[in-house]
Amino acid sequence: MSLRDLQERYLPSLEAELQAVAQAPQQQHAELFGILRYHLGWVDSTLKPSPAESGKRVRPMLCLLACEGCGGDWQKALPAAAAVELLHNFSLIHDDIEDGDRTRRGRPTVWAVWGEARGINAGDAMFGLAHLALLRLRGRGVEDGKVLAALDLLIESELALTGGQHLDIGFEDRGDVTADDYLAMIEGKTAALVSCACKLGAVVAAANADRQARLASFGRHLGIAFQMRDDILGVWGDPEKTGKPSGADLARRKKSLLVLHGAENNSELRGLLAQDALSEEEIDTATRLLEQVGSRRYVEELEREHHTRALASLEKASLQGPAGEALKELAQGLLGRCR
Amino acid sequence: MSLRDLQERYLPSLEAELQAVAQAPQQQHAELFGILRYHLGWVDSTLKPSPAESGKRVRPMLCLLACEGCGGDWQKALPAAAAVELLHNFSLIHDDIEDGDRTRRGRPTVWAVWGEARGINAGDAMFGLAHLALLRLRGRGVEDGKVLAALDLLIESELALTGGQHLDIGFEDRGDVTADDYLAMIEGKTAALVSCACKLGAVVAAANADRQARLASFGRHLGIAFQMRDDILGVWGDPEKTGKPSGADLARRKKSLLVLHGAENNSELRGLLAQDALSEEEIDTATRLLEQVGSRRYVEELEREHHTRALASLEKASLQGPAGEALKELAQGLLGRCR
Repeated sequence: MSLRDLQERYLPSLEAELQAVAQAPQQQHAELFGILRYHLGWVDSTLKPSPAESGKRVRPMLCLLACEGCGGDWQKALPAAAAVELLHNFSLIHDDIEDGDRTRRGRPTVWAVWGEARGINAGDAMFGLAHLALLRLRGRGVEDGKVLAALDLLIESELALTGGQHLDIGFEDRGDVTADDYLAMIEGKTAALVSCACKLGAVVAAANADRQARLASFGRHLGIAFQMRDDILGVWGDPEKTGKPSGADLARRKKSLLVLHGAENNSELRGLLAQDALSEEEIDTATRLLEQVGSRRYVEELEREHHTRALASLEKASLQGPAGEALKELAQGLLGRCR
Repeated sequence: MSLRDLQERYLPSLEAELQAVAQAPQQQHAELFGILRYHLGWVDSTLKPSPAESGKRVRPMLCLLACEGCGGDWQKALPAAAAVELLHNFSLIHDDIEDGDRTRRGRPTVWAVWGEARGINAGDAMFGLAHLALLRLRGRGVEDGKVLAALDLLIESELALTGGQHLDIGFEDRGDVTADDYLAMIEGKTAALVSCACKLGAVVAAANADRQARLASFGRHLGIAFQMRDDILGVWGDPEKTGKPSGADLARRKKSLLVLHGAENNSELRGLLAQDALSEEEIDTATRLLEQVGSRRYVEELEREHHTRALASLEKASLQGPAGEALKELAQGLLGRCR
């Protein structure tokens, strides 16, 4: 069974699980939950059903595959997979406000439709739902101690997430951000939740501590490699595939690892990247310099290194059957994006 | 032992519990946790120790008293008391952003010092810490099933909180808010967490379901009565005691129950309250009209009704010893504020 087959098997159940959690408990909260359902891609901004792009559900897929690959019943892990996806979406709602982004997945962001106050509050509700989702593990026959262990993991990754986000916000005002600072930031902002997703699958499958640690390590390196790829695509990505104009990260003056490395190693780049805005010509110059200075190579090497480590951890976890293979396929696909 | 004696016994341990939870796990997160410690009243905005007004810690006191009054060990309930206080403080950090309030407890609010983006994110971290705090129940010998029951309660009250806050935000743009809408809003925004605090104490004490329900009901009615009192104080409160100018709620055009009742029953008031701003003279007129029209009496009667119901529920919970008495004293004190 290929990754695609497994996706076809898992995803409808995952959507059903998410739908079951994101139901307003009372009619008076219908609008708030409508906002959450909009963000999750099920309704339009008038709250009428309208399937939109809902994101790739990568994290829950990792969780379900990890569970099955450890010999567990993937259906038992649905609450954990849903929790991870809801936590990811909570962070997107708040990030969009914090970054002032008005568009996501081709639609207006929550705050762009409903304003900042409702947007902050809707993110908080999504945060609460992530925990509610996880507690549904009890209804799947997962024993209490294991549910609490899963909650420990979720909360740990939440705190890592906010820690990483705090560093990221701080980067905007700082001229002295180093590549190491950046790596510390994405450990929290990107890697922690991907790692949590994989480990949760192992926990539900009652895998031993060694396997849990291997899968956590797989997720962590995968998350870091994924972010490196994202940074490359932010400059050299095909606009048709990424949905962003090429050079988008340079135009936004985003402090990606690429940009930080470039500025550390080349004074012309440093000057360009310190400007308030860049013309198209300057974006072209910066793009060329990033290549010449070796920044692209540096980031691609790091990506490869983490990719290799991710796959080595996965190998050592010695997963079983098609789910193990599919995890590898998923990892390869994420990292081969739009090259 | 009086309420005061019990406060002197509980509060230092509660602060120690809060301090233990609000510790940065790694040095790189010291600033984020510094923001949380600032909000909790332990450090100034340069993150140097500086005891400030930390709030009254009413909710955790209710939790600890409920636990001891049910024959439980109050020290076992410290993680639950801390969780409730952290959840309350999370909501304050976000409410201040959503309402644009720049001052709280005589100091600049978190977002006024660190900006909105960091403020939203710091609130998220405080939200995560509330769960982390609750999970510490395990270290106090509370069995797993009971810890999960406590988490259920916390998450339920979180969702009620965000539901109430969503309604409250909506009131600002609406001209047709009714007294019933208002009551539904404060059920979530105020009553749910007070109710949760009381019930959590009973859960940790392993009280039977009837006692748990009585204490939840006590907290709920207390929370509603408390809010009614707050509305009265927002117009007739002594500025020396409330820290706000008299008539503050009218000047801010806050849609309190008083104002909603007044506007429903008097066209002159309706006109005044629909204005974008009120002069001091108009505030005086509105204040007088609220009294004449019977709005003050209406709210005070509702307050009395919920107060009576709160005490009746407490009575039926038949708590033991000085903690039971102290709970009654605390309730009386909250409702007798600044009359």
